[in-house]
Amino acid sequence: MAIADKMHTFMSHSSWIRKMFEDGLRLKKEFGAENVFDFSLGNPNLPPPEEFYAALKAVVEEESEGVHGYMPNAGFEEVRRSVASFVSRDQGIEMPWDHIVMSCGAAGGLNAVLKALLDQGDEVIIPTPCFAEYRFYVDNFGGEARFVPVRSDFSLDVAAIEAAVNGRTKAVLINSPNNPTGKVYDKQCIEHLSKMLDQKGEELGCDIYLLSDEPYRDIVYDGRHVPSIPAAYRNSIIVASYSKSLSIPGERIGFVAVNPKAADAENLLNAITLATRILGFVNAPALMQRVVARLQGVKSALDDYRRKRDLLCDGLVEIGYDVEKPEGAFYLFLKSPMENDLEFVKALQKKNILTVPGSGFDGPGYVRIAYCVDDETIVSAMPGFREVLEEIKGG
Amino acid sequence: MAIADKMHTFMSHSSWIRKMFEDGLRLKKEFGAENVFDFSLGNPNLPPPEEFYAALKAVVEEESEGVHGYMPNAGFEEVRRSVASFVSRDQGIEMPWDHIVMSCGAAGGLNAVLKALLDQGDEVIIPTPCFAEYRFYVDNFGGEARFVPVRSDFSLDVAAIEAAVNGRTKAVLINSPNNPTGKVYDKQCIEHLSKMLDQKGEELGCDIYLLSDEPYRDIVYDGRHVPSIPAAYRNSIIVASYSKSLSIPGERIGFVAVNPKAADAENLLNAITLATRILGFVNAPALMQRVVARLQGVKSALDDYRRKRDLLCDGLVEIGYDVEKPEGAFYLFLKSPMENDLEFVKALQKKNILTVPGSGFDGPGYVRIAYCVDDETIVSAMPGFREVLEEIKGG
Repeated sequence: MAIADKMHTFMSHSSWIRKMFEDGLRLKKEFGAENVFDFSLGNPNLPPPEEFYAALKAVVEEESEGVHGYMPNAGFEEVRRSVASFVSRDQGIEMPWDHIVMSCGAAGGLNAVLKALLDQGDEVIIPTPCFAEYRFYVDNFGGEARFVPVRSDFSLDVAAIEAAVNGRTKAVLINSPNNPTGKVYDKQCIEHLSKMLDQKGEELGCDIYLLSDEPYRDIVYDGRHVPSIPAAYRNSIIVASYSKSLSIPGERIGFVAVNPKAADAENLLNAITLATRILGFVNAPALMQRVVARLQGVKSALDDYRRKRDLLCDGLVEIGYDVEKPEGAFYLFLKSPMENDLEFVKALQKKNILTVPGSGFDGPGYVRIAYCVDDETIVSAMPGFREVLEEIKGG
Repeated sequence: MAIADKMHTFMSHSSWIRKMFEDGLRLKKEFGAENVFDFSLGNPNLPPPEEFYAALKAVVEEESEGVHGYMPNAGFEEVRRSVASFVSRDQGIEMPWDHIVMSCGAAGGLNAVLKALLDQGDEVIIPTPCFAEYRFYVDNFGGEARFVPVRSDFSLDVAAIEAAVNGRTKAVLINSPNNPTGKVYDKQCIEHLSKMLDQKGEELGCDIYLLSDEPYRDIVYDGRHVPSIPAAYRNSIIVASYSKSLSIPGERIGFVAVNPKAADAENLLNAITLATRILGFVNAPALMQRVVARLQGVKSALDDYRRKRDLLCDGLVEIGYDVEKPEGAFYLFLKSPMENDLEFVKALQKKNILTVPGSGFDGPGYVRIAYCVDDETIVSAMPGFREVLEEIKGG
């Protein structure tokens, strides 16, 4: 074997995802893409907002010396100032500009943070179901992911997290609004978690960081607000992205913000910056840094996602599915009406409906439906969802 | 300690580099930036070519659906086709489009390749002096870097590399034109290396990959040509970047090309693509992919670097320095006239000349002078170079 054994294992484990993807392609070829209802991808379907195009054009017009060259690994100072100023308002704390490190999206930011924190065998607690790649990110740096299931309403089980904390716990990684459940952790829940982490940290004589992965922060419904993690917990790090709010995931732009009150904050920032360099990111893409600096607080027409959510959820409830209505992001984590979620996914596939089994997110017994699709796709898939449920109940 | 012990060690080891950088800032503050001769950074000083600006504007004008969204992790198919077509012509082989993986610069590409190849304890042979970050890149994935010094004319010592090959050797990583020596490995040298690797691979019953890091491929002088690695060696992988040839290092765009004849090529490509995803790059920045697709074979006014090289080398030779004239890239690796290169760097610093000690590249006894600077900087620094040499000879 020429490639690493480890990568070979990863690749064979993910072969069923590949198979699903290939099945999807086959279906689209056979029936035409318009007759296949693809809910499998978290690719925002809204276009970027007008302001994005205007900022992009303006940045390209205003070329000046060195703007495509190297800058400090953490990013252009003016960009970091603009981000810090927005984060301060948005999160209700004073975020100094030099506590911002621009990153290649949230995925790049998370990897830099984990590289900065983890020695071999250090543990990261992750509530499940969760984004499938977290497992790899932690493993990249020799860390161990400790998965702790959420409650049945998808809220955090703080007691279970507490039970998982030990002397090797370096961090807890949360994601709210959540992929795949759409849950938004409320203020009370965050305060409860923070208090527990403070106590455990003191008890164990160590600093437990709370990493808050917030790519969906702007995508919430029904007047909800995502509570500020840095306002609630000292040892906190925000990892953010413009991928979803501006619908530009291919451009790989986001940032890391370290709470100024965090233990060892200066070392931590230096380590995250060094990690950005030595992992090969070097810096976040220069041009997009300058674009997003002008778009602080700007969002795509996110209310469209609410309409899609309602269309999907109301439709499924009417058919008879058991739906926990998502509070944010653009995913519904639907309880599978049969025990084996993979079988349910296959049954849906027979109706040309593509979804992802919950097992892929450490959440067996569910399927993830990404509703960042055309309204028509949602409406047209409903008969298929109905037939599958009837078949299951009938069988 | 909140951050990883490993990162703490890295940070304290690199503290002298930081100190040098801070000394430089202090000098610039004290004497004015125009009176400090900064040869410490490999940041291209030529502007991007006109074609780059035209392509950037055209790409921004021609917005269409999904261009800022996710694409396959390896990059847009049309971009990979354009790159493959150029690589085929430039390297004299048939490079299939699906053997190209677009990357976040050469640094991102190298990390993805090493992640794909290395299990804990696997070895990578690296001729020294070398780019300082290679050590970190190999360590990122639990690999061991085996450093093998080049000859005194900076050419490869193939016998020494052969002696370092063993059953754990996964790859040899070369960089030509070289940072920091400016050496271009000639065809004979590459053929010698290839033959040896073929023999050793057969003898040991394993595949030894030759990784060719080629960010300076286009920057060569005096009619030299960088020989094609894939034409010479089957198990080869090119890692390339547009950072230096187009003067856009902040934009993080490059590619990996896997020789279609390489052992296990398909698995390798899948592993590099998966590594791109799970390291958090996800994909190379979308907009710049589309820009460089239109600029295959386009370069900055690279001949300006030749003029700068001659200005520097001729000046130093005249003063009495021992100069091995660089054949490519924009670095001179100057033999230190005193044994301790750090002392020489300090002596130059007293004349407001900033350079980097060879020790930082595993090449003690030398200093690196990056001549990607204004001609005036080179000319104005000459008296300082002269005074230092006179002081050393006088002392």
